[in-house]
Order: sequence, then structure tokens, then C-alpha cells
Amino acid sequence: MKVMILGIDGYIGWALALREISKGNEVSGIDNFFTRRRVREVDSDSVIPISTMQKRISQVREKMGKRINFYRGDVANPKLIMDAVREERPDVIVHLAEQRSAPYSMIGLRQATQTMVKNVVSTLNIIYAVKDIVPKAHILKLGTMGEYGTPNIDIPEGFFEIEYHGRRDYLPFPKQAGSWYHWTKVHDSNNLMFANKVWKLAITDVMQGVVYGTRTREISETGLRTRFDIDEVWGTALNRFCAQAIAGLPITPYGKGGQTRGFLSLEDSISCLDIAIDNPPNEGEYRVFNQFDEHYSVMQLATMVKEIFESEYGKEARIVNVPNPRIEAEEHYYNPEHIKLARLGYRRSRELKDEISLILEDLSHNRARIESLKEVISPRTVWQKSSVN
Amino acid sequence: MKVMILGIDGYIGWALALREISKGNEVSGIDNFFTRRRVREVDSDSVIPISTMQKRISQVREKMGKRINFYRGDVANPKLIMDAVREERPDVIVHLAEQRSAPYSMIGLRQATQTMVKNVVSTLNIIYAVKDIVPKAHILKLGTMGEYGTPNIDIPEGFFEIEYHGRRDYLPFPKQAGSWYHWTKVHDSNNLMFANKVWKLAITDVMQGVVYGTRTREISETGLRTRFDIDEVWGTALNRFCAQAIAGLPITPYGKGGQTRGFLSLEDSISCLDIAIDNPPNEGEYRVFNQFDEHYSVMQLATMVKEIFESEYGKEARIVNVPNPRIEAEEHYYNPEHIKLARLGYRRSRELKDEISLILEDLSHNRARIESLKEVISPRTVWQKSSVN
Repeated sequence: MKVMILGIDGYIGWALALREISKGNEVSGIDNFFTRRRVREVDSDSVIPISTMQKRISQVREKMGKRINFYRGDVANPKLIMDAVREERPDVIVHLAEQRSAPYSMIGLRQATQTMVKNVVSTLNIIYAVKDIVPKAHILKLGTMGEYGTPNIDIPEGFFEIEYHGRRDYLPFPKQAGSWYHWTKVHDSNNLMFANKVWKLAITDVMQGVVYGTRTREISETGLRTRFDIDEVWGTALNRFCAQAIAGLPITPYGKGGQTRGFLSLEDSISCLDIAIDNPPNEGEYRVFNQFDEHYSVMQLATMVKEIFESEYGKEARIVNVPNPRIEAEEHYYNPEHIKLARLGYRRSRELKDEISLILEDLSHNRARIESLKEVISPRTVWQKSSVN
Repeated sequence: MKVMILGIDGYIGWALALREISKGNEVSGIDNFFTRRRVREVDSDSVIPISTMQKRISQVREKMGKRINFYRGDVANPKLIMDAVREERPDVIVHLAEQRSAPYSMIGLRQATQTMVKNVVSTLNIIYAVKDIVPKAHILKLGTMGEYGTPNIDIPEGFFEIEYHGRRDYLPFPKQAGSWYHWTKVHDSNNLMFANKVWKLAITDVMQGVVYGTRTREISETGLRTRFDIDEVWGTALNRFCAQAIAGLPITPYGKGGQTRGFLSLEDSISCLDIAIDNPPNEGEYRVFNQFDEHYSVMQLATMVKEIFESEYGKEARIVNVPNPRIEAEEHYYNPEHIKLARLGYRRSRELKDEISLILEDLSHNRARIESLKEVISPRTVWQKSSVN
């Protein structure tokens, strides 16, 4: 199968590329190194050192005996994506090429606009590229569980039947995102749903939970690492907590820490995407997967990191709840459904406790890098202070 | 009151400016003449001749003794809107400055992208301008009833209480728009809802039905006409049907013509906006108005135009259903609620039949202009054929 990965240089993108290569698929990819540049913009860096794309490609050739057709550029540039799709004629296009940070989108108007335009335009470009060039190809698009927000009712996988004033319809579930970034993902989902309606494109729209972890099977086997961010803009909760423990910093849940989200390990995230690739939608189908494994409150995760760190490293870790820079409910109902991927064969492969141990171990080898990033771990991007800049 | 109208040169914008001026409000406006330029791009023009903005301003000074502070430029340019808001410090910003044609957005990727970026970015700019400069100002934003699509249940005004798996929540009504243009309005609504949540901005989000008519009270009194488009890209259903009758062309509903929509006259549209201006939301309130008067199927409207034309002009008018260029249900349930504006005092001032007579009369004085546009009335923009261009 020909798999094209947009955003192949990213945390998920690189890990997925290794999986698809190891399965014998033909892998091509696009990236403009947006995340590398923007992470530097906030004086941060991946705490696990990663190679340049050029080096990554030659390492894959050496260690796995495979080539990656790489296109450098921005998917928001229609010519680039059209040319690449025409050249590769992929069976599946995995779209990970979006600005992925909620805090980045909330820094100010410039970042809000950039996130909105980059994300929405890239998805529009992909829709037209597929429609005009490879209309049977499968678009596998990464969205986020954050699109749904935290409603006081169960969250279905995309659609639900509702009764109102005595009549019934099967409708998209209302979204209530919590940052400009999350809203771009909602806009993309809506645009993809429409593209499916008009042009019958085959689309999987993945509502993914928060991903944690440093390794997949292939990363462990090859040593070809993927990036790992811990700063307040680009890092996610559990990853950041592990780095704080290793650096001897307080573990800092935002607010009360009752915010509950779906989580899954990097290994399991890659397995889910791989299952979606192997089991494409029917012709003309738009389907939504809620892609996460278990849900935890942020406070539960902080406590687990603290306990595992203390028992394995024999040092104390403190949890300090800090003022929440975001506007979000800190105590709420949360019960999203997630059955479709399980029906296709998904099974959890990693236990959270084991994964936390592994992250701590990988980070302990990079303590100096974490130390050098101490200043950028605490929240500085405050939703209410987002302003013209 | 200080009223700033973004898109003051447009069909609604100009009519609203005249209303607010005649009420003694201080009116300022922004426009970049996007619609004038883009209408020419499809070889069309307003069939009712309109003055340049420069002339409009001097005519208002002569006939009404009032000045309009006009800023030429694009609201998608953040500096322009920031400077204007800082200068004017409006009490209310009426946002009509968006690409407003569904067919235009469906011509191809270039127009889709342009519509998406222009509309979403202009609304983001307004959010930040208000938040940073006049945080108490009222944002009155024009959306469309088309955001809702045609669900098989009643359509509330923005939000509804639903029960799912035995639990209840009050949620935004799910949207199912039918063109890229309509989706940009959904994206804007979502972005405004979020801006309200984070920064407590006072927002009225207007889901407006299809507007018809050539005149408001002030247009009749001053003779300062607003534009009137009849081509397939920029004209709306009833306006186009009237022009077809006058030109001796068949009246052409798309498909079966069972598509049912909310409609209201230009006079009533302006009255509704004026009511919203006079009755702003509470501090920190985001409210949604379904702004239309009655709902009709496209076929009912075509039949009314035919009958009124035949009785008043003594000539035959034919109705010819043409293949539907859009992807939409041609027979469906339709029952949107619209009670909030009525509660604030809205009453219909024009009867549809009288309004059709008036449109036909105004158009009969511009028969030559309609004749010259014969070629651009029939649908050429076909949803399924939208392509890279």
C-alpha cells in the first residue's frame, strides 16, 4: 500500500512512518518543519534529541533498507500537495500537517490567525487534491477529542440520534472546543463532512485523546527517536509531568486538576492509525473514530507520575496545583464512547504505569536538556490575556 | 449611538446605513468593494444602478444632512480594523463584511480558500479589536439560516436542551451547511461563541433567511438605491425570479423546487438588525437570532412571481425546473423557531405579494440592464464540478 504522511517529521508522523515502513508499505511524506521552527520560537526544543529529516531518511535506508519519498514544503500551499499527490498517487493520505498546539494558538491574534488559516487551508487543499487526482484514496485526518469539549452527556463517535419536540434525526454531535487550535479541528471536521457529502470522498476523522510516551515498537528496535516536547506550549500533560519529576520541579496540574480527558500511549496511537489504514472506510463513507484508550483526570495522572517516580528514583516529587491558564471546567462529567476501533481489533498494548516508567527512564538520560528548559515549562500563555500582537 | 457597519457598501450594509443615519445615529463604515469587483469578475453587475461610495457619501450629506466616516479597506487586514475601531470607538459593530455568495465559494479551490480565509480572518480580527479596544461594544454578526441545513427536527435559535442516554445538557444545535460559504458562517459562529466564553464579549449572531426586495423606507424616501444582483452567483432566489419574469426568461427553480427556506424582505431585515442594535445583549451574553419572517418552498415563490407578473404585466411567465447545481435535499421537513426578535417587538411590515410587485416595478425600469445580463442568470456553478483552478 502507498501511504503518504503529511507532517511526517512530527511526534506522531515520524512514529507512524516507522510503523508503515516496517510493515512493508511504500511511505512518502511532506513536512515544512513548522513544529521545529515554532518550538524554537518559544525557546524550547525536543528534550529527546532527534535527527534532521535528511539524516532520518538515510538512517531508515541503513537500518530498515527502505526509502522515504520526502517533499519539503507546506501543505497549505496547493501546488505542493497537488504535485506530490500526482507523483505518488497514494492509497491513503494521513493528514497530520497542522499546527497542533492549543497554547500556541492562544498567544495572540497573529498566532490565532496563523493556526486558523494554516489548518483550514491545508485540509481544503487535501480535499481538492484527492477529489481531482485520486478520488478513491482514503483521507485519514487527525482531529482531537478536544473538539467535543466536556458536555454533560455521553459523547458518541461523531454522530447520534436525538429526539426534539417529538421528532428524530441522526445528527453530528455538537462541538464545544476550548481553544482556537481545537476550533480549527472542528472546522476541519465540518469541512471534511461536507466534502464527503458533495464528492463522496472516503474519510476517517480521528478524534484523538492526549498522547503520551517516548517509544513505539519500531522506535525501540531502531533507536530512531521521535520528538518529545515538555514546554508549556508544545508539551502535553503527562509528558510534561514526567519531565518535571525528573528535573526535580514540582508537577503542576492546571487548576483543580479535575479536568478529565481521554489518553493513549504513542504505541497505541500508532496502532490505531495503522488499523484505520488497514481497514479503510467504505466507498463514499465519512466515519469518525474516538481514538483514546482510558480516561483520567489530570490530577490522577500527576499522582501516578509522582508515585512511580518516588518508588523508582527514591526522591520526593511534589504536586503543586497552579492557576489554570485555560478557560475550562475543572470538574465535569466525561464519558465518551470508543467502540469502533475495538471492533476493528484494537487492543491496549501498554499499561499506563509501565509507560510512565519508560518515559521517566528515557528522560533521565536527557536530564541536562530538561534542566536547560526549566524556564519554559510553567504556563505563560494565558487564554484571557491573548491579545493583538 | 455610534454604529460601525463593516461591509457598508453592500446590499444590506447600505440599506442599514440609511436606516441608522435617519434615526440620528452616528454611522461609520468600512468596505473594500469586494462584491463590486467580484460581481464584475463573473461578467455581471447590479441591475439597479448604484453610485460610487464617494458619491453615496456626498448624497447622504446633501439629502440627509449627515456625514459617514468611511474607511476603505479589507476587514481581513487587522491593522485597518484596529485603527478604525480605535478612531471611532463604536457602541456596536455590525459585521456584514464577508464573501456572501455560496456559488462563488463553490467555483473552485481558489474561491473556496479565499472565502474561508477572508470570512474567518475578518471575524477573528473583529473579536480581537473589540476585546482589546472597546470590550463593552456589541458585535452584531450576520450569519445565515443556511448554517443549520435541513434537519428532520425543529431548529431552535442556536441552542437546545437534549437528552441522550438518560442525561441532559443545553448545547449548540448541530450545523449542516451546504456550501463552503455557508460553512464559513458556521466557523464564524463557533469562533464567536468561543470568544464570548473566554472574553465575555456581547454578541448577537444572526441566522438570517434569504432576503428579497429593492427598497426600504429610506431608499424610497431618498432614492439612494442599494445594489440588486440577479446573476447565478450573486443573486438570490426571489430576486432572480423577478428579473427572469421581467426579461421574458423562464423562471428557473433548481431541481424539484421543494427546498424550503426562511425569507424576509429587505425592509424587514433592516428592521430586525435595527431592533438588535437598539436592544443589545446583556453584558457577556452570546445570543442567536433566527432572523426570517415566513418560510416558503422555492417552487411556491416561483409560482407567486409568475402569477403576480402575469396579472400585472399581462404577459405569460413560464416556470422551468432546471437541474439543481447544488447538493441539497429537494423535499424535506423545515420548521425553524423564530421568536426572539418578535419578543423584542419585530412585526412584519411588508406582505410578500406587495413586495414582489414593487421589485417587478423597479426592475421594469431596468429592463435593458437585465437583458444585457441574460447569459449569467442560468446556473453554471455546479457543486460537484468544483475543482482546482
